[in-house]
Amino acid sequence: MPHSNAGVENTMPSHDDIILKPIGAVRTEAIGDEVKDKTRISHIIIRDELAEALEGIEDFSHLFVLFWLHEISDKQRKTLKVHPRGRKDLPLLGIFATRTNLRPNPVGLTLVELVKVEGNVLTVRGLDAFDGTPVLDIKPFDSWDMAKAARVPSWWTKLEKEKAQPR
Amino acid sequence: MPHSNAGVENTMPSHDDIILKPIGAVRTEAIGDEVKDKTRISHIIIRDELAEALEGIEDFSHLFVLFWLHEISDKQRKTLKVHPRGRKDLPLLGIFATRTNLRPNPVGLTLVELVKVEGNVLTVRGLDAFDGTPVLDIKPFDSWDMAKAARVPSWWTKLEKEKAQPR
Repeated sequence: MPHSNAGVENTMPSHDDIILKPIGAVRTEAIGDEVKDKTRISHIIIRDELAEALEGIEDFSHLFVLFWLHEISDKQRKTLKVHPRGRKDLPLLGIFATRTNLRPNPVGLTLVELVKVEGNVLTVRGLDAFDGTPVLDIKPFDSWDMAKAARVPSWWTKLEKEKAQPR
Repeated sequence: MPHSNAGVENTMPSHDDIILKPIGAVRTEAIGDEVKDKTRISHIIIRDELAEALEGIEDFSHLFVLFWLHEISDKQRKTLKVHPRGRKDLPLLGIFATRTNLRPNPVGLTLVELVKVEGNVLTVRGLDAFDGTPVLDIKPFDSWDMAKAARVPSWWTKLEKEKAQPR
């Protein structure tokens, strides 16, 4: 490793790999773009041996689900820039300025509504993950996760407005 | 593996490990509990080769930072239940019903305010991570990440009220 930039290198963690194991998996009947429908119900099946770790989760109405975008290839993980949703009329942006799946560590993060908990099965609304997606973590949502007056770029607002148009 | 519950097992992803690599690291002067001070400034140093992936991020006011809780041991990752913040007067809960660091996949998730971007350095406010913490991903925050009317348990509200008390 070059040492030309000592200040930065000193801060960098070692290159050791970080190893995660799925805590469960997504089960959904949605196919293709259907997963983006925020009214859809999905199930998260938690490994039997972790079921106990769900105790008390039913008292939260909303959860963050972290999941592994297992269909992203090693080559795709090297992507640095994208047009949001592949739209050439929108600016070419760094991947950290978008929610694209093409990321160095392709971990999805989605806020879902918790509908029901039964044993090791969570029923949730609004999870945009395909059937069989490995789930990495589940975190309860609280007001510390919320920015009431958040600023977003104009390309984001434009996409949102288009979505609101009747087709 | 037992096959008594075929439906669930069929949904489970393979046991292959998921491998992540840090995209950068946290740099902060905060020590110990000082990192919890939401007014504090931290820096995130992104690997030089990924700096380009930040383009356009400055148009967002808030970001989610995903980071690796590298001080959590393999044994701690097996924790299933905790008392929130170690408080025995609060209920014993499954770890997925809390934001404890003791999780099967110890990935931290914090909403921060983006103060400034200079080259490969992000200046942020409110990141509760120690100096040297490996950063795994950065995602821009938008209104889809927000639940306006979220329900939380009474133990959570109790802790929040205590925090608001003058010491």
